[in-house]
Amino acid sequence: MLDLDDGAKSAERILAFRDEEGDVSRDYVDAVAQAVEAGDAEKVRDLVRPFHEADQGALIEALPADARARLIGLLGDVFDFAALTEVDDSIREELLDELPTKTVIEGMKDLESDDAVYILEDLDKDEQNEILEGLPASERVALQKSLDYPEDSAGRLMQTELVAVPPFWTAGQTLDHLHATEDLPQSFFEVFVVDPGHRLLGQIFLDKLVRSPRIERVDALMSTDRRRVHATEDQEQVARLFERYNLVSAPVVDEAERLVGVVTIDDVVDVIQEEADEDVKALGGVRWDEELSDTVMTIARSRFVWLFVNLITAFVASAVLGLFEGQLQKMVALAVLAPIVASQGGNAATQTMTVAVRALAVRELGAGNAFRVTLRESLVGLLNGIGFGLLTGAVASLWFQDWNIGAVICIAMLVNLVAGALGGILIPLTLEKVGADPAVSSGVFVTTVTDVVGFFSFLGIATLWFGLG
Amino acid sequence: MLDLDDGAKSAERILAFRDEEGDVSRDYVDAVAQAVEAGDAEKVRDLVRPFHEADQGALIEALPADARARLIGLLGDVFDFAALTEVDDSIREELLDELPTKTVIEGMKDLESDDAVYILEDLDKDEQNEILEGLPASERVALQKSLDYPEDSAGRLMQTELVAVPPFWTAGQTLDHLHATEDLPQSFFEVFVVDPGHRLLGQIFLDKLVRSPRIERVDALMSTDRRRVHATEDQEQVARLFERYNLVSAPVVDEAERLVGVVTIDDVVDVIQEEADEDVKALGGVRWDEELSDTVMTIARSRFVWLFVNLITAFVASAVLGLFEGQLQKMVALAVLAPIVASQGGNAATQTMTVAVRALAVRELGAGNAFRVTLRESLVGLLNGIGFGLLTGAVASLWFQDWNIGAVICIAMLVNLVAGALGGILIPLTLEKVGADPAVSSGVFVTTVTDVVGFFSFLGIATLWFGLG
Repeated sequence: MLDLDDGAKSAERILAFRDEEGDVSRDYVDAVAQAVEAGDAEKVRDLVRPFHEADQGALIEALPADARARLIGLLGDVFDFAALTEVDDSIREELLDELPTKTVIEGMKDLESDDAVYILEDLDKDEQNEILEGLPASERVALQKSLDYPEDSAGRLMQTELVAVPPFWTAGQTLDHLHATEDLPQSFFEVFVVDPGHRLLGQIFLDKLVRSPRIERVDALMSTDRRRVHATEDQEQVARLFERYNLVSAPVVDEAERLVGVVTIDDVVDVIQEEADEDVKALGGVRWDEELSDTVMTIARSRFVWLFVNLITAFVASAVLGLFEGQLQKMVALAVLAPIVASQGGNAATQTMTVAVRALAVRELGAGNAFRVTLRESLVGLLNGIGFGLLTGAVASLWFQDWNIGAVICIAMLVNLVAGALGGILIPLTLEKVGADPAVSSGVFVTTVTDVVGFFSFLGIATLWFGLG
Repeated sequence: MLDLDDGAKSAERILAFRDEEGDVSRDYVDAVAQAVEAGDAEKVRDLVRPFHEADQGALIEALPADARARLIGLLGDVFDFAALTEVDDSIREELLDELPTKTVIEGMKDLESDDAVYILEDLDKDEQNEILEGLPASERVALQKSLDYPEDSAGRLMQTELVAVPPFWTAGQTLDHLHATEDLPQSFFEVFVVDPGHRLLGQIFLDKLVRSPRIERVDALMSTDRRRVHATEDQEQVARLFERYNLVSAPVVDEAERLVGVVTIDDVVDVIQEEADEDVKALGGVRWDEELSDTVMTIARSRFVWLFVNLITAFVASAVLGLFEGQLQKMVALAVLAPIVASQGGNAATQTMTVAVRALAVRELGAGNAFRVTLRESLVGLLNGIGFGLLTGAVASLWFQDWNIGAVICIAMLVNLVAGALGGILIPLTLEKVGADPAVSSGVFVTTVTDVVGFFSFLGIATLWFGLG
């Protein structure tokens, strides 16, 4: 799928970086690993030089753990430290521990501030300070300012390199400035217009700038309607803003509306991806920060917690079964069929909950439509409850040759599917209301509801119907 | 969070468009609905004019269904048809049915080609043709070409408006061209360099162009290393490419490497969001295209299918219980405890499955690490199996005052958690291998495994232990 760089094409025709599935090719990794093993710096550099920082990051992940730091050592200035923003957190932390501080400082000097902050923020205070002290004063101050903003805020996400001009400049003057100035950001899409107090007045995209009459003043050309984010705003809100207005970048301002940085879409894409990941994992009972590179013990411990909570709810459901021990003994068919009622309710409730949690996450579900959606889910539960009640009833009647048992399971199924629908929507809504993350905790409550209601309704109705009390 | 446009600030100070939670404010929607009701075109226009297309889309979604088409009619040219790309599919289709074809054609004329294709592609062939025939020939041809590419391909996602120059032009010449030409794309980030056969040679971002010496030729300035996509490539692959290399845009080429369009990051963000949504929904047993605006019947029907499959597996699990009817009758404690073994195994397996499905989706899991991850998951299952086996065994022993029953559930729990771990990883891997979507179908198989293994191991071991056979 990918074209290699020209450099790659000429230097290493034989070794394709990625295989057809887009994974880093085994042959390539082996070749690099061998060269690292042999300490052949020139070979290593030739192999790695042609590749993009993201590919360098993928290579690091694919290498054996003990070859990673040595690779970076051998690569010297061929290694792009931005590659470290592309690897798993745990691998990055290991690497930063292993690498000499001097190497890290040298590598950090070439980074844009957002990448530098991304790497620094996971280190502990001492390591951070050691690295910061090795950097030139201007960079240090900018990074320190970003790091002072709360975790997961726009201030952490932004880069501080940007182009800002005064409102009285003309388009021509601005273009000449861009043309003549050495010290510009590595890449940028717009020029910001600020007042003498560095307060943001507006911005002009480059495509508009090059199309404008040279004599026009920038404050006449700039758009003032564009969205800005505050440095303390949470990154999820920033992501919402980018999604909603299809932004490519957005200025970041401080509490006095002074321009302090710019957030670009590539960082926001990471946030969106991260968020979606967290939702998927949370719904599956996995911690949001679990990574494929974690150790067995770390994973076992983090999953234990969720399973422990589930075990308690499983015992609660069993206790309900225990209430009906006598009835189960008299009619063992009840013991055989009860799990069907509970499981079908659980699955229906999970469907509703999934829709609710995701709609809450992307803000499609709110006070405005909560009632309507709840009503709709209840009706869906009722309809499917009737359908599955009749179906299960028929099968159970045939199985146990007793239409009474079919009638009982039919009613219980209907009750549990409606209960599941209500639980599936009301529990996430309530959790959101009280400030808990619905993706994380809805599942436990919802299946508790359907297990308890399923067992209780089925066995309760059976007790009455058959006079088993 | 949002600043309103200047226009909005002066025209309608009193009505904020969004409330503090970012939802469209009720007061604003009511004011618009009233003005629509009264047929007051001027009022409607004043209320809506200041807002971005995305806000106009949100307004349409928030309005009662019967007011939507009338709003668009009253707005006339104040309505930005791009707003239709921001609303739910079902609402868009309804609206396009209701609106006079002439209105739709007029609205489509102002759209970038990617937005136009997005709106057109869901219509049936007749409607598509009717609209296409009303458009100017050049637009019609471009749209038709996009529509001829397969659904969900890069060709559908791209916009055909772009700037391309020959390789022998200089930077100065190119800038002068941009300055003097009227008919440029609404917004663009780069200039493409093409040969006389319109084959892509390279591209230059605007920030690089304005910084370059005016006399330099573009083929000396252009970067050739950037990634391109083929028009027939699937949008998910396009999204992977953008994510991997932090792209803002990418050229689209046809089979002859001719430049046919450009995909921009805003469209890719939608794809990423959509994909994540599909994974979340699929794991929760909900169809990927279910939307909050769907009708009760549509939803009930689409969810029925998944629940039906689950019902079959629930009956299979119950049949396993049925095999042990005699044992259940002799020891009712077994009937009470069996669901705990099954449920705990199901939850542990779901954890593993969630990690596996997501890692497959974002291509972190592949042939290279499948074995290692499987081994790791098995060990996690073993560790947690031992932990929960002992815990459950202790509680069960106390509950039923019989350490034998504790011993039996302890072993069964261990067996089922290891089985769950293996099922949770091997089932998604196998489904991926045979070309099925692991997110959609893993759940059913996985819970079948843990229900069957859970019931069978617990009751089988109990039969042997207590000599109940």
